[in-house]
Amino acid sequence: MARLNEVPFVKGHGTGNDFVVIPDVDGRLDLSADQVRWLCDRHVGVGGNGVLRVVRTEHVPEFAEFADVAEFFMDYRNADGTLAEMCGNGARVFVRYLDATGLVTDNDIVIATRGGLRSASINHDRTITIDMGHATTPRARALPQVTVGDRHWPATGVLVPNPHAVVFLDDLSEAGDLATAPDVSPTDVFPDGVNVEFVVPRGPQHVAMRVHERGVGETLSCGTGACAVAWAARRRDGASLDGEATWQVDVPGGTLRVTETADGALLLNGPADLVARGTVLIPV
Amino acid sequence: MARLNEVPFVKGHGTGNDFVVIPDVDGRLDLSADQVRWLCDRHVGVGGNGVLRVVRTEHVPEFAEFADVAEFFMDYRNADGTLAEMCGNGARVFVRYLDATGLVTDNDIVIATRGGLRSASINHDRTITIDMGHATTPRARALPQVTVGDRHWPATGVLVPNPHAVVFLDDLSEAGDLATAPDVSPTDVFPDGVNVEFVVPRGPQHVAMRVHERGVGETLSCGTGACAVAWAARRRDGASLDGEATWQVDVPGGTLRVTETADGALLLNGPADLVARGTVLIPV
Repeated sequence: MARLNEVPFVKGHGTGNDFVVIPDVDGRLDLSADQVRWLCDRHVGVGGNGVLRVVRTEHVPEFAEFADVAEFFMDYRNADGTLAEMCGNGARVFVRYLDATGLVTDNDIVIATRGGLRSASINHDRTITIDMGHATTPRARALPQVTVGDRHWPATGVLVPNPHAVVFLDDLSEAGDLATAPDVSPTDVFPDGVNVEFVVPRGPQHVAMRVHERGVGETLSCGTGACAVAWAARRRDGASLDGEATWQVDVPGGTLRVTETADGALLLNGPADLVARGTVLIPV
Repeated sequence: MARLNEVPFVKGHGTGNDFVVIPDVDGRLDLSADQVRWLCDRHVGVGGNGVLRVVRTEHVPEFAEFADVAEFFMDYRNADGTLAEMCGNGARVFVRYLDATGLVTDNDIVIATRGGLRSASINHDRTITIDMGHATTPRARALPQVTVGDRHWPATGVLVPNPHAVVFLDDLSEAGDLATAPDVSPTDVFPDGVNVEFVVPRGPQHVAMRVHERGVGETLSCGTGACAVAWAARRRDGASLDGEATWQVDVPGGTLRVTETADGALLLNGPADLVARGTVLIPV
């Protein structure tokens, strides 16, 4: 019989991207990849797109130097057990947890992530805004091309800093079944694979998108994907790049807003909801 | 802002068929179909194949007459919010909950379900056995035929009492992708649709199966499906139908055992695990 660990957890989601939050402020829990996979398993575990371990930054040796600026470190793990740098929807759920439990009391805080420090704001309308940093474009000799079945589209490559290929369509149904990954060529533009967003206009500074996340499939939402889409949509429209501009990005799981500031930072805004809490028996 | 109900819950599974258990022994909770759908939603809710509300039978007017025999009523709801009569894997999780929480202290109990009274045993090896009743065959003028893609197989129709079409193969991969429902004809054999099991021999009184559950897709396990498979396998082997016989049925989510007693009752045996508990905020 396996030993079991009874561990507190919270379940939360941001626009349908869902996470198992594991509070471990004193950094005592050594979550293995197997345990993360088990926690995220939707049938035998709790179920989620990832795990957010909440730990004081001072207890994370690689990031302890940031402890004065960012009291908490977001230890994000993908559902497959691998480490991840950053997750925009996850960061909102992480900040919601800190706020709901009183671990932070300011409305403007900084959190530490494997992708660096991130500013976060808890807004009066209960949404949360995360500074996702700047977008860049991949080095490439040609525009990437996305293929689904026998259809091909040119794409805009965007790094946030994870890779995205953004395709503009007239109708989201044109993208067809996104259960399998669209083909993106030439492959050397995105040597580590790429997330693919399909986008349609909905109105002024307002678009809707579907997304295929690499290694996952079609998902209800993707925070960095929404940032890449807003960034690409602003440039596609030939709009002035002077000053700040906000785009509404509808995802299958809800509504996000992305503001590109005058200095080019992308601020991701959206809801974050905690829906359940309790204890889970993790096999060890 | 919607009012929210903070309700205790337990998450459990039997061979990968997973359930949100809602304790409501005094029958005070009026769970709507919307709330059940929300609880079972794997992204914005808790996530499960169904909800098991635990209520004392005396508080369920339609079944109160059975309260002396069966102290607890299994109020099972499908993930789509509809009522269901019975669920073999769910019944084991239900009984595990009663046992783990001390609501029952005997190892042999009777529970009430919409499908009638069911005997259950909590075994020394921690498995649970549920009396699933007798299997029958549907009235039909011809054997049903199952089609996946361009392949066709004759099937055995079995009612447990929900409908099953059992197909014997040489290799489980022959069934291909079961994301969409296999075609079963003639359609008048199963007017309410049918679950389809694909079965291969593994050894003496030992088979393995995959299942497409009507309205759901391929699942990790199906309790009545395992009963239908064992019943059909015993008859296919031309084995003696005298006396008791036990078949091991491997499902993608684990191992079940089905005993057909001398009087034809099917006893479904398998594991049931509770993995998390806590409170959930249900939108009302």
